Amino acid sequence: MVLLFSQDRKQFVTRLQPGLELQTHRGVLRHDDLIGLPWGSQVLSHTGYPFLLLEPSTDDLVRHIRRSTQIIYPKDASYILLKMAIRPGRRVIEAGTGSGGLTLTLAQAVMPTGRVYSYEVRPEMQQLAIRNLSRLGLDAYVEFKLRDIAEGFDERDVDALFLDLRTPWDYLEQATEALAGGGFFGCLVPTANQVIRLLQALESGRYPLGMVEVEELLLRPYKAVAERFRPQDRIVGHTGYLIFARKVVPLAGGRAGEPPSDEE
Amino acid sequence: MVLLFSQDRKQFVTRLQPGLELQTHRGVLRHDDLIGLPWGSQVLSHTGYPFLLLEPSTDDLVRHIRRSTQIIYPKDASYILLKMAIRPGRRVIEAGTGSGGLTLTLAQAVMPTGRVYSYEVRPEMQQLAIRNLSRLGLDAYVEFKLRDIAEGFDERDVDALFLDLRTPWDYLEQATEALAGGGFFGCLVPTANQVIRLLQALESGRYPLGMVEVEELLLRPYKAVAERFRPQDRIVGHTGYLIFARKVVPLAGGRAGEPPSDEE
Amino acid sequence: MVLLFSQDRKQFVTRLQPGLELQTHRGVLRHDDLIGLPWGSQVLSHTGYPFLLLEPSTDDLVRHIRRSTQIIYPKDASYILLKMAIRPGRRVIEAGTGSGGLTLTLAQAVMPTGRVYSYEVRPEMQQLAIRNLSRLGLDAYVEFKLRDIAEGFDERDVDALFLDLRTPWDYLEQATEALAGGGFFGCLVPTANQVIRLLQALESGRYPLGMVEVEELLLRPYKAVAERFRPQDRIVGHTGYLIFARKVVPLAGGRAGEPPSDEE
Amino acid sequence: MVLLFSQDRKQFVTRLQPGLELQTHRGVLRHDDLIGLPWGSQVLSHTGYPFLLLEPSTDDLVRHIRRSTQIIYPKDASYILLKMAIRPGRRVIEAGTGSGGLTLTLAQAVMPTGRVYSYEVRPEMQQLAIRNLSRLGLDAYVEFKLRDIAEGFDERDVDALFLDLRTPWDYLEQATEALAGGGFFGCLVPTANQVIRLLQALESGRYPLGMVEVEELLLRPYKAVAERFRPQDRIVGHTGYLIFARKVVPLAGGRAGEPPSDEE
Repeated sequence: MVLLFSQDRKQFVTRLQPGLELQTHRGVLRHDDLIGLPWGSQVLSHTGYPFLLLEPSTDDLVRHIRRSTQIIYPKDASYILLKMAIRPGRRVIEAGTGSGGLTLTLAQAVMPTGRVYSYEVRPEMQQLAIRNLSRLGLDAYVEFKLRDIAEGFDERDVDALFLDLRTPWDYLEQATEALAGGGFFGCLVPTANQVIRLLQALESGRYPLGMVEVEELLLRPYKAVAERFRPQDRIVGHTGYLIFARKVVPLAGGRAGEPPSDEE
Repeated sequence: MVLLFSQDRKQFVTRLQPGLELQTHRGVLRHDDLIGLPWGSQVLSHTGYPFLLLEPSTDDLVRHIRRSTQIIYPKDASYILLKMAIRPGRRVIEAGTGSGGLTLTLAQAVMPTGRVYSYEVRPEMQQLAIRNLSRLGLDAYVEFKLRDIAEGFDERDVDALFLDLRTPWDYLEQATEALAGGGFFGCLVPTANQVIRLLQALESGRYPLGMVEVEELLLRPYKAVAERFRPQDRIVGHTGYLIFARKVVPLAGGRAGEPPSDEE
Repeated sequence: MVLLFSQDRKQFVTRLQPGLELQTHRGVLRHDDLIGLPWGSQVLSHTGYPFLLLEPSTDDLVRHIRRSTQIIYPKDASYILLKMAIRPGRRVIEAGTGSGGLTLTLAQAVMPTGRVYSYEVRPEMQQLAIRNLSRLGLDAYVEFKLRDIAEGFDERDVDALFLDLRTPWDYLEQATEALAGGGFFGCLVPTANQVIRLLQALESGRYPLGMVEVEELLLRPYKAVAERFRPQDRIVGHTGYLIFARKVVPLAGGRAGEPPSDEE
Repeated sequence: MVLLFSQDRKQFVTRLQPGLELQTHRGVLRHDDLIGLPWGSQVLSHTGYPFLLLEPSTDDLVRHIRRSTQIIYPKDASYILLKMAIRPGRRVIEAGTGSGGLTLTLAQAVMPTGRVYSYEVRPEMQQLAIRNLSRLGLDAYVEFKLRDIAEGFDERDVDALFLDLRTPWDYLEQATEALAGGGFFGCLVPTANQVIRLLQALESGRYPLGMVEVEELLLRPYKAVAERFRPQDRIVGHTGYLIFARKVVPLAGGRAGEPPSDEE
């Protein structure tokens, strides 16, 4: 997989294959001319327009996969990894799979020894995600499951579980069954109504989840020009609210205990 | 290493050792009572106050290391990992080491097969960072170097290089010598003046760095209470500006080429 | 009323009266030495510490009134004035009065020919507000009313009506009775739950209010230092959500009409 | 002047005149049908599409004036009024006039007894602004001056002075000559470079200006839908930095004094 970055900042992600050509807004690049070049090389299209040949970052890959759903933005995906301690060797459940954008990020974070279990109920979405991950050679780290998660997850004692779906409050029982004690629960929802509904479920005392946090990340891009340094004029104003919690295990020694209150 | 999280949301990170005790604002916890308990267990202090026994996330560890310098916040550290494609197997240079907060995050991201080369010029800072990483068992993935980086880096062809120091524009030649073609360059500076000075250097054409981006991340924490959901009253208003670039290799075929312009 | 601004940026608002003294953290200033000086004068305390003698802005006055309630921040108050067309000559209703911070701002905006009708149900709050406005000589432009506004407002055809209270949805009938056709309705609430509850009432079709907008203003203060220009570290993260609407009059000519939908 | 607001949230500002028609995307409205209707009335276009007949707010007027320059956004204009104590009776200088957007806001704030002195060096811009203000009947409160302000201002002892131009640091001497002691100085610039350059001038000690503040306002609009309450997806990310200061008068009693330092 390569990223071609034109002088006017357009980006093209593709897999190099002998005999193929890349059509751009600034002329054609023959894959045969690119294969074997070192990363970072400048190359010219047939019209003489300059491009950089680069290794795609996770960010680049996620933005260029074929998708039919809203993807989780890199700013959010990266923060999810850190907050939920998703790193090499971890076992992580994700639902739903969607186009595989977050699946890709999770797979790159847990490889080579960890594993992602990705659940999806729509067969055509799952097929799209499998194709996206296969093109990147990341499907070896993911088990794709076609399932309504209302029926529960197959795994137990997973390190982290992330719900990227509209009604996360409907699956808290299934989620806590699959999580290890102390395991990381997370989800992302776009509206305040959904956050409130989820908090109501978490405050009900019916689920062993505590340490609840709600956060939002705003990315402010700037114009990278030395003489006119300033924030960009038009930006993404909202992607979603992130909610995190940890699985609680009943009080050691048999005494009944309340989950820690999250009220200040 | 464990995180003890009290019902009133205070956090204690410590390494469990037989015979020791943890003093908290809500009573004492004996390490012997905690060793062997499953993650997520509720435990009581000698005064009967409830705590959760949790595995610390990277975020928790970074916030609890002993430090004498400003650390890079988790929101920034996690975004740096994603933007700079820092993942298992990568070879990454960092300067300066500081208290080791970012070193820790980098080590957890590249392990087990990757490597972090961390440069620092102040011996006492380096010692602090080594102690912090050793306590976490992460020092095996890091080579600590005591060096003024004006003299250059030992490594070549590294995948990514991050500068966390006051005058990054002074070390762009050394940085590009160490980076592989297409390699990821990044730094974080707190003031607009520093960004402008760095952009001037990057625009000078003296360094093979292109695809420059400047971004800022704002974290908005919310009150996680279902009936009164709202942003927190007082928040961190600024941590720093993030600058990213990629190493460019001269035009293939011997023709002179200009680095791609970053002006829109 | 004067503002004394010390070299270390402390602020003191007081009314100058012969014979009195102002005690500060940097020594004493005798009112007799200040009376008659031009605005902008530098003066010294008895310890020789420099102060500026300034006319207080509306912002300064609001921040220095005696208060027992949360005040509306200047960033919000000023935006309310513009969005609700509150300017000289306007007749404006406000409820509740609280400590009189917004009352003061409204009075300064509608004077000399306009009028503020300010409703409050707690006698001691009203007394505090009356004292605050009287000290500033602004009580001539305000009619203070002690009343539970569930009983309705006395005025009709007012230009604008602002609700600064916990349950604005309970008073929409009373508010629309008092407003002129096309009049400006506004309110400020701190939680998302309150916004949602208010929007539900506005969407119910029971009240002649349309053109609904919800907005939030974030103020980002910077360090005003030429060599280290950067945002402040700790800031106010949230004050409240602003909701604006306009009073709709039934369709001209007797035909039934639906209020314009606010859904996009 | 009226605002016609369609059910699908399009806005039309026009001056009603007998015999004329308003063409909209949803049919024609005859001015004769609108003249004499109460504010807030619902009216139908010839195709039966509903509109609201409303009095325009200052915000509406500013957004609908004919313009050939970037205007100051309402969020910034309203905050400028409050921070600089611009209210009925005040005498205020503005440079440059531009299309007259801020002139309009200032005129509405100081009327009926105050006055705006508005300087502009480009004749065609001034003509545009005069036409814009005349259409609104606000030209009676403004003196338009065609002048390069490097030559100074005619007025003395004005209450406030606002610079909306590219190089405010070039006119600080002229500005402080025109301002009264303690008077309010303000300006808005889009880039960090301009803020830094202005702060350097203010820190030079050459101008009697103190109490310097730099602030930025971010407006976050929300989707006003009860069941899906959330921030808007795409927003304005930056308008400009606001800089405020106060005119200082030399130390009373003849002793030399330094202006208060603005460094913390």
